[in-house]
Amino acid sequence: MSKKAHIAVILSGNGVFDGSEIHEATMTLYAIMKNGGTYQVFAPDIDQYHVINHITGEEMEEKRNVLIEAARIARGDIQSLKDFQPDEFDALIMPGGFGAAKNLSTFAFDGSNCKINGEVEKAIRGMADKGKPIGALCISPVIVARIFGDVELTIGQDRDTAEAVEQMGASHKKTDHGEVVVDKNRKIATTPCYMLDANILQIAEGADNVVKSMLELME
Amino acid sequence: MSKKAHIAVILSGNGVFDGSEIHEATMTLYAIMKNGGTYQVFAPDIDQYHVINHITGEEMEEKRNVLIEAARIARGDIQSLKDFQPDEFDALIMPGGFGAAKNLSTFAFDGSNCKINGEVEKAIRGMADKGKPIGALCISPVIVARIFGDVELTIGQDRDTAEAVEQMGASHKKTDHGEVVVDKNRKIATTPCYMLDANILQIAEGADNVVKSMLELME
Repeated sequence: MSKKAHIAVILSGNGVFDGSEIHEATMTLYAIMKNGGTYQVFAPDIDQYHVINHITGEEMEEKRNVLIEAARIARGDIQSLKDFQPDEFDALIMPGGFGAAKNLSTFAFDGSNCKINGEVEKAIRGMADKGKPIGALCISPVIVARIFGDVELTIGQDRDTAEAVEQMGASHKKTDHGEVVVDKNRKIATTPCYMLDANILQIAEGADNVVKSMLELME
Repeated sequence: MSKKAHIAVILSGNGVFDGSEIHEATMTLYAIMKNGGTYQVFAPDIDQYHVINHITGEEMEEKRNVLIEAARIARGDIQSLKDFQPDEFDALIMPGGFGAAKNLSTFAFDGSNCKINGEVEKAIRGMADKGKPIGALCISPVIVARIFGDVELTIGQDRDTAEAVEQMGASHKKTDHGEVVVDKNRKIATTPCYMLDANILQIAEGADNVVKSMLELME
């Protein structure tokens, strides 16, 4: 990589059960800087599908906005996904968490028939059209499966999710902690993170490896 | 250190402006595991002082609970601080964020005359009484200053905050990114993190260094 990579990070809220998984999001930002890049965080300006009490797992009677909650992870330095411009970035990455399957897409409810948020799809297609790498952690690879169909990727080892991405036309590769599947043709790098029963060291390793793979795809 | 250190982490919510700073909290958990330890996250079961929109900086018309919000960072694996038992842990650490100065204490409003949450003070005194190390990042050192008075610590370089901790009886040492001040007598290790204009690499370094210092204090 000749210049400093500037990478767009799409978040889906702030918390594993209804938004972005916090360790994956933080470790993605860390991995980008550690590997010499810079980042800008984005999120869609939409209501979360719901709000989950992260102790009980039960739904809470309130509304939260994906962009406003994701701003907590970004320390306020965040942009609405509607303002995303593919020309300004060298790559795009999506950490996981249920927000990817509830806010950025409807995968948690509709499986292989899921809909993708229009701004998310536009951002990803915009990058792909310019031959720029896309990274996805944890459950986020379902989004690229739904958009592109025939893509080689991983969501770890969960049989139901693997079947769903194959129904969308993707080729699934089973992976363990920290492993990355790279589709060189489509320039898409994926890693399982908390789709496996993982600890925070393994999340850091996965985020680091997927960012490194994206940088290699830029060469 | 002969055995695996088990470290209690006290959070104050989930977001820099009204709770725990997310990068500092995540990097603290990471540093503990990276240095061979294990952790348990705690938070007091109280309402947040307020809820801040992290994009605009303005107060939002809603209530959130510190324990329930902190559970997002802990992925649900969290305990109420009222159940904290010093015997079960080898050390205790507090990441920063305004929550330390708004929820765990009233430092943001009362400065050197601040009150400390009763459960927080009990947990910290319980560890100190047993000669176990305490770590504090960012603004959290104000809590140990208020509890112990004569402690050597750092809050970075902010003059007003440094003056306030000195008014509480502490001896302040100016520090730069990643530096740790260790009070060997009291077994307290502090580091500035986002009290300086820092990036996430510097936060990871500070968290790692303060955890290493705590482990050395256990020897």
